[in-house]
Amino acid sequence: MKESLKKYIVELIGTFFLVFTIGTILFGGSTGNSAIIGVGFILMVMVYAGGPISGGHYNPAVSLAAAIRGSLPWKHYIQYFIAQILGAGLAAYAVQYLVVVPPIVASPDYHVPAMIIGEFLFTFALCYTVLLTATSKKTEGNSYYGLAIGSTVTAGIYSTGTFCLAAFNPAVAIGLLTMGAITSKLAGVTLLIDFVGGIAAGFLYKFINYDN
Amino acid sequence: MKESLKKYIVELIGTFFLVFTIGTILFGGSTGNSAIIGVGFILMVMVYAGGPISGGHYNPAVSLAAAIRGSLPWKHYIQYFIAQILGAGLAAYAVQYLVVVPPIVASPDYHVPAMIIGEFLFTFALCYTVLLTATSKKTEGNSYYGLAIGSTVTAGIYSTGTFCLAAFNPAVAIGLLTMGAITSKLAGVTLLIDFVGGIAAGFLYKFINYDN
Amino acid sequence: MKESLKKYIVELIGTFFLVFTIGTILFGGSTGNSAIIGVGFILMVMVYAGGPISGGHYNPAVSLAAAIRGSLPWKHYIQYFIAQILGAGLAAYAVQYLVVVPPIVASPDYHVPAMIIGEFLFTFALCYTVLLTATSKKTEGNSYYGLAIGSTVTAGIYSTGTFCLAAFNPAVAIGLLTMGAITSKLAGVTLLIDFVGGIAAGFLYKFINYDN
Amino acid sequence: MKESLKKYIVELIGTFFLVFTIGTILFGGSTGNSAIIGVGFILMVMVYAGGPISGGHYNPAVSLAAAIRGSLPWKHYIQYFIAQILGAGLAAYAVQYLVVVPPIVASPDYHVPAMIIGEFLFTFALCYTVLLTATSKKTEGNSYYGLAIGSTVTAGIYSTGTFCLAAFNPAVAIGLLTMGAITSKLAGVTLLIDFVGGIAAGFLYKFINYDN
Repeated sequence: MKESLKKYIVELIGTFFLVFTIGTILFGGSTGNSAIIGVGFILMVMVYAGGPISGGHYNPAVSLAAAIRGSLPWKHYIQYFIAQILGAGLAAYAVQYLVVVPPIVASPDYHVPAMIIGEFLFTFALCYTVLLTATSKKTEGNSYYGLAIGSTVTAGIYSTGTFCLAAFNPAVAIGLLTMGAITSKLAGVTLLIDFVGGIAAGFLYKFINYDN
Repeated sequence: MKESLKKYIVELIGTFFLVFTIGTILFGGSTGNSAIIGVGFILMVMVYAGGPISGGHYNPAVSLAAAIRGSLPWKHYIQYFIAQILGAGLAAYAVQYLVVVPPIVASPDYHVPAMIIGEFLFTFALCYTVLLTATSKKTEGNSYYGLAIGSTVTAGIYSTGTFCLAAFNPAVAIGLLTMGAITSKLAGVTLLIDFVGGIAAGFLYKFINYDN
Repeated sequence: MKESLKKYIVELIGTFFLVFTIGTILFGGSTGNSAIIGVGFILMVMVYAGGPISGGHYNPAVSLAAAIRGSLPWKHYIQYFIAQILGAGLAAYAVQYLVVVPPIVASPDYHVPAMIIGEFLFTFALCYTVLLTATSKKTEGNSYYGLAIGSTVTAGIYSTGTFCLAAFNPAVAIGLLTMGAITSKLAGVTLLIDFVGGIAAGFLYKFINYDN
Repeated sequence: MKESLKKYIVELIGTFFLVFTIGTILFGGSTGNSAIIGVGFILMVMVYAGGPISGGHYNPAVSLAAAIRGSLPWKHYIQYFIAQILGAGLAAYAVQYLVVVPPIVASPDYHVPAMIIGEFLFTFALCYTVLLTATSKKTEGNSYYGLAIGSTVTAGIYSTGTFCLAAFNPAVAIGLLTMGAITSKLAGVTLLIDFVGGIAAGFLYKFINYDN
C-alpha cells in the first residue's frame, strides 16, 4: 500500500476510537469519574499503535502544531484533517446508534473566558507534549511518548472538565456536534481555541529551537 | 524444557490469571468502577511477563490475528487455543469456588446489534494494538507494548461495558460461561464476534503491509 | 559505601514506604477504592528507584524466589529479610502514630481455603512477574519491569481483597500485625502462604529454564 | 535561544501546569478521589516533556536535592527557583479566576507532628525517586523516570492527604497560599519541611554514593 494512504487509514482508525470511546463513556451510562481514564488510555493505545506510521495525531490541532514544527509535511495536512474528521464523524454516528445521547448537554453553564482559558491551556499542553516527546531527535526511540500524550488528556479532563468542554481536539468537538450533544456555537468556539492552542505550541517549539 | 511446551504453559498461566481476575472483580464484591483497571493491569502484567516467551496472547482471537499476520505459526494455533481454554476453565472453577457467581448476569438487556458492534470494535482494537506494538519489526524492543495492550481492554470495558459483554476474548467468554454467569447463547455470539474482530485485524495488518 | 550495605538500605527504604502507604491508605480515612492504585504505584516507584541497586524486592517472598532462581545470592538472603522486616516494622510504628488503626480488622470473615488460594495465587503472580521481567537476561534493560510488578499488586488487591488479606508479602503481613490491625494467626498463615507462593514461582522459573 | 533560558521557560511551564491542575482539581468541583491521579499524571507528562531540557523539576525541593547531588549547577538554582515560583504564582491567579477557591481549607485539623512526618516522608521519596531514576548514569536513557516521579505524588496524596497538605513541593505550597486556600503559616511550615526532605534525599544519594 502507498505509504501516505497507510497514514490516512491509521489516522482515521485512531480518531474513530478516540471519539467513539469519549461518546460511549459520556453517554453510555458508565458511572464514576474513574471512567475518564479510559479516554486517556484509548488515546495512548492508538498513539502507540499508529505513531510509528502516521505520527499518531488523531487531532487536527496536533497535526497543525506538527506542521508548524516541521514534522508533518504541509502537503499532507489536509488529508490528515479529512481522515480525522471522517473518523470522528463515523464514531459519532456509531455512538448515536449505540447509546442515548442527551440533547445538548454541557453547554449552558460555561463562563466564556473560563472556557477559553481551560480549553486553550490543555490543548497547548497536549501539543507541547506531542512535539517534545514524539517528534524530537533528542528523545527518539523512547517508550513513554504515548503514555505522556494520553495522560495529558486525562489530567486535562479532571482539571478543566467542569468549566469547559475539555475536548482539546477539533475532531472531538466536531464528533460531539455530530452526535447532537453540543451546540454548533460551542463546537465552533472550542474548535477555534484548539487550533490556537496547537499554533501556540508549534511556534513555541520553533522559538525555543528545541533540537539545537 | 521444550521451547513449545514453555509457550503453552505461559499461555495457560496468563489466561488463568486474566479470567480469574475478571471473575473475582465482577463477582467478589469489590465496589466502584475503578476496579476495572485491575483487568487491564493483569493483562498488561501477563503480557510483559510472558510476551518474550509465547507472545503473550491469552486470547484465541489474538492468536488467530497473529497467525494470519504470520507471527504465530499455524501449526501452534490449536495448542495455543487449548492452553488458553484450559487456563480459562481452571480460572472459572476457582472463581466459582471462591466467590458467589450470580445466576446468568448481564445477558438480558443487550440490544443485539449494539452488542455486536461494541464487542467487534474493541476486539479489533485489541488485536490491531497487539499486532502493531508487539509483532512489528519497526518497533522491536519497545517497552510499551504491554501497557498499550492492557489499556485497550480497560478503555474498552469503560466504553462498551454497558451494552455488550466486553470480553474481547473467546477465552473470557468461555470462562464466564463455565462460571455460570452468562447463557451459552451470549457466550457463543460473543466468541464468534471476537474471532471476526481478530480476523479483521489480521487482514488489515497484511493489507496495509505494515512492515514494508 | 560498601555495595552490600547500599542494597540493605535501599530494601529498608522501599519496604518502609510500601508498608507505610498500605497502612495510611487502609486506615487514614482516604475514601473510594481508587486509592488502592496508590499501593501498586508506591511499589512501582520503589522498584524503579531501587531496582538497579538491590533488585527492588521489598518482600521476603520475592527475595526467596530470587534466591531459588539464582539472581540473589543465598548469603544475602537473611540480611535482605532483616532489612525488609525492619522497614516494615518502622512503617508500622509510623502508621500507628499517624492514623487510628482499628482493632483487628479484616480477619473475622475469611473462608480459610479461599484465603489460602487468593493469597497464594497473587504472591505467585507477583514473584513470577519479578523473575520474568526483572531478572531475565532476555529482557535486560527494559523499562516496564516496575510497572508490571507494581500493577500485579493493584490487580491482586482488586481481585482478592474481599476474601483474603491481599498482602502477597510477608513483610506486609508483619507490618499489619505490628500496627495491631490483624491477629497473629492471620499474619502467620498469610506469611506462610506468601513464602509458598515465592517458592512455587522460583521453582517454576528453574523448571521452564526460562533463559535457555 | 540560550540553553539556560530554555530551561527556565520549561520549568515555568511545567510548574504552571502542575499547580494549575492541583488547584482546579481541588476546587473545580470534580468529584471522586480518582481525580487525584490527574495530579500525578500532569507531573509525569511535564517531566517527560521537559525533562530532557531542564531536568523537569518543577519543584524547588527537587532542584535543591539535584544541586546537592550535583546534577544541577548551584549557579542555576536561584533562576530555577524563580521560574518555578513564577509558574506557580501565575497558575494560582488562573485558578482563582476560573474556580471558586474556598477560604482557607485544610489547615484547621492537622496534628502538627503528623503533618511534618507525612509531608517530609513523601517529599523525601519524591526527591529520592528523581535522583535515582532521572539523574543516575546507571539508568541513563530509561523510559520510566516520568512514570515513577509522577506516581510518587499520586501515591503520596492517597497516603498522607488526610493528615497533611500533601504538597511535597514548596512551589505548590506557595501556589495554594496565593490562591488563598491555606494560611501563610501552613504554607511556611510545609515549604520548610519540603526543603528538608529534598536536602535529606540529596545527602542520602551522596552518602550511598549511588553511581560508584
